Amino acid sequence: MPKLITTRTRIADLGKPRVIIIGGGFGGLEVIKGLQNHKVQVVLFDKHNHHTFQPLLYQVATSGLETSSIVAPFRKLFGKQDDFYFRLGEVKRINSIENYIETSIGVVKYDYLVIATGAVTNFYGMNEVEKHSSSMKNIVDATKLRNKIIRQLEYALLTEDPEVMNSLMDFVIVGGGPTGVELSGALTELKKNVFPKDYKELDMRQMDIHLIEASPRLLNGMSVQAGEKALKFLTEMGVKVHLNAAVKSYDGYEIMLSTGEKLISKSLIWAAGVKGNPVEGINPDVVARGNRLLVDEFNRVKGYDNIFAIGDVALMEGDVKFPKGHPMMAPPAQQQGKLLAKNIKNLITNKPLKPFSYFDKGSMATIGRHKAVVDIKGIRFQGFFAWYVWMFVHLMSIVGFRNKVFTFFSWMWNYFSFDRSNRLIIGRNEEKINQEELSKQSA
Amino acid sequence: MPKLITTRTRIADLGKPRVIIIGGGFGGLEVIKGLQNHKVQVVLFDKHNHHTFQPLLYQVATSGLETSSIVAPFRKLFGKQDDFYFRLGEVKRINSIENYIETSIGVVKYDYLVIATGAVTNFYGMNEVEKHSSSMKNIVDATKLRNKIIRQLEYALLTEDPEVMNSLMDFVIVGGGPTGVELSGALTELKKNVFPKDYKELDMRQMDIHLIEASPRLLNGMSVQAGEKALKFLTEMGVKVHLNAAVKSYDGYEIMLSTGEKLISKSLIWAAGVKGNPVEGINPDVVARGNRLLVDEFNRVKGYDNIFAIGDVALMEGDVKFPKGHPMMAPPAQQQGKLLAKNIKNLITNKPLKPFSYFDKGSMATIGRHKAVVDIKGIRFQGFFAWYVWMFVHLMSIVGFRNKVFTFFSWMWNYFSFDRSNRLIIGRNEEKINQEELSKQSA
Repeated sequence: MPKLITTRTRIADLGKPRVIIIGGGFGGLEVIKGLQNHKVQVVLFDKHNHHTFQPLLYQVATSGLETSSIVAPFRKLFGKQDDFYFRLGEVKRINSIENYIETSIGVVKYDYLVIATGAVTNFYGMNEVEKHSSSMKNIVDATKLRNKIIRQLEYALLTEDPEVMNSLMDFVIVGGGPTGVELSGALTELKKNVFPKDYKELDMRQMDIHLIEASPRLLNGMSVQAGEKALKFLTEMGVKVHLNAAVKSYDGYEIMLSTGEKLISKSLIWAAGVKGNPVEGINPDVVARGNRLLVDEFNRVKGYDNIFAIGDVALMEGDVKFPKGHPMMAPPAQQQGKLLAKNIKNLITNKPLKPFSYFDKGSMATIGRHKAVVDIKGIRFQGFFAWYVWMFVHLMSIVGFRNKVFTFFSWMWNYFSFDRSNRLIIGRNEEKINQEELSKQSA
Repeated sequence: MPKLITTRTRIADLGKPRVIIIGGGFGGLEVIKGLQNHKVQVVLFDKHNHHTFQPLLYQVATSGLETSSIVAPFRKLFGKQDDFYFRLGEVKRINSIENYIETSIGVVKYDYLVIATGAVTNFYGMNEVEKHSSSMKNIVDATKLRNKIIRQLEYALLTEDPEVMNSLMDFVIVGGGPTGVELSGALTELKKNVFPKDYKELDMRQMDIHLIEASPRLLNGMSVQAGEKALKFLTEMGVKVHLNAAVKSYDGYEIMLSTGEKLISKSLIWAAGVKGNPVEGINPDVVARGNRLLVDEFNRVKGYDNIFAIGDVALMEGDVKFPKGHPMMAPPAQQQGKLLAKNIKNLITNKPLKPFSYFDKGSMATIGRHKAVVDIKGIRFQGFFAWYVWMFVHLMSIVGFRNKVFTFFSWMWNYFSFDRSNRLIIGRNEEKINQEELSKQSA
């Protein structure tokens, strides 16, 4: 038995350098994998006991995938890795002078600290909008949204007031990035293939799906061609796309747009932006644009020797292609995590550090059946083949072999049946439905 | 468009007899299926938007199956059935004089009413025990229990007090019926195959699984031979079975048994009994033993012409083999539901009613890998072959083809990998873990 240190977290002192990683997202996982079989102790802290494959949360929200297919318990992923310790808990504060973290379960010392806490939804200070909208950053969010979508249609059956009925049947998605585009597309497929069978009593032509984007185009992170094609696909599918339009206010019922237009909906889904999610205790001067921590080319947080940040929460300036920081998505996080694991080993063995350089593999988004847009290097393509490429790449990226297999089966099932079997309302006190909710106000 | 009646539930008046079914369990589903394509309007009220396959809830609780595999949305099941209406809502009260029900979403008239509300957990008035224990009657219960089991082990990592550690690692299951036996077995398999890899820091020999049964034997509903073999299997697997022992009190930490023995555990799982779940408004004189509604041989609630009860909530006396009522499990509910659909058609067409007679197909329970007990008619067998029979019968009984396929894949996966991939903590405010919980008291 290794000697136990005196803090209450009971993480054994193995007498070797301890690397604490805060957050088991795409970046954190790569650091852990990269440090396997090296002479360090790896400690992961996370608020969840599982990794979440965030790019597919929208499919959970739209009944296409079950929750368990896109999450993987950390202990399953790293159960065989020596000197790996997981602790379920929230990190409250970093003490960089004395090299320890304060957590909901006690205090732990570190030799190297990796902040991989990712991002949270950014409502840009609009508290009223935040209060009334749905967002999607974890499994609970996605399940709540799924419950809500289905419940709104159950409510719509109960009213004769056409305005209230529309407020229940219309969905407004804010943000024309990949999440907004993919969610609008998936909702449209529910509207087309599933809801008409389920809700014969409702006139499904009354169901409107609005997509609101503040800039003049969709998919800003991709090519102009991809953005235009996505707009074409969505418009053909019946999505009402509002470009150059921002949400001014939302009280749970009325949405005021910057264009002066007013929409009525009890369901606003916010996918308009994220911001970094840094940990308390870091010098506020290095918290920069988008609430991200300024890091050097080795992902070291500026002004610190042994604290690193990777992925969405890190802002590395100076990349020729991304001078204002890398996009907040999986690939930069994964590549930074992989390199950081090497650099931590280099630090320990007194070897020189390697600077990070981002290899942009391109990006893609799916809109619906046989409809996707792909930018890979100079090559851009859209439609049928792009859709298969999107599915293949996502399937290969899902963490865990079992999850790949089960996601593949679910997708096959959905493809051939045109069905979405997970249209379930599951949650405490969520199943309750009361006539009283049918007012012209917030649900 | 059919004319809408004036109640707020907006269920169309089709001008044909309306059959309202309260509850979409095993019995309710059979009534709906049986009334397909007949000249009646079928209305299902349920608090959930899905049917739950309750016999496998214990596998959800022990991380063996994902929730979505054992539930099926009602609208998916009956989307193609003409004149079928589903309403998500709670039935509050029956008005048998004026033939309507009051629900959380309004009032609806019926011509024929079928009470198929099943059963709830019976704590026999022990409120303190109820407050501190887990039970399993729906998906939310099962998920809460899964979360709890995993969380207890995460907590166990954080304490040095051997008593507190035992209170977290020990699990006490009350009730030696099928649910208790199956749950004890499944927990033992987690202890043997999964937890040692996940929790290398814990000494898994410290994890005790207790099964408490008030009578002198296990599986009272089955043959003596099945009960003895189940006891042998469980004991070999390491379960501590306490026969002739009842729970006297539980404060969330200490369990006092009628034998004078004291157990310490923060996890007590109550599977010691169920009671009928009748609806308000029925004459209290017909609420009989086990809170069940007395029905005649046509499942008509005694004293009523057009109100029926089937399944767990119905008590039909006089069956030669079951003079005190049929067992509270799926087959009687299904057979009663099937016959009742026919009898409702007979009533409408003025044909004579057929009395119910239960065809006992036997019963079975699984204990673990290659270990099950089966009683079919005169034939009793246990072990390897029984286990395959158990799996086959359950697979065939799961509602929905997709669910059969996905459950089959999950079982294959679990069988060959010895793994349980759904060991997830998912829930609002459930992921939080705080050192403060580590007291010698209720969690």
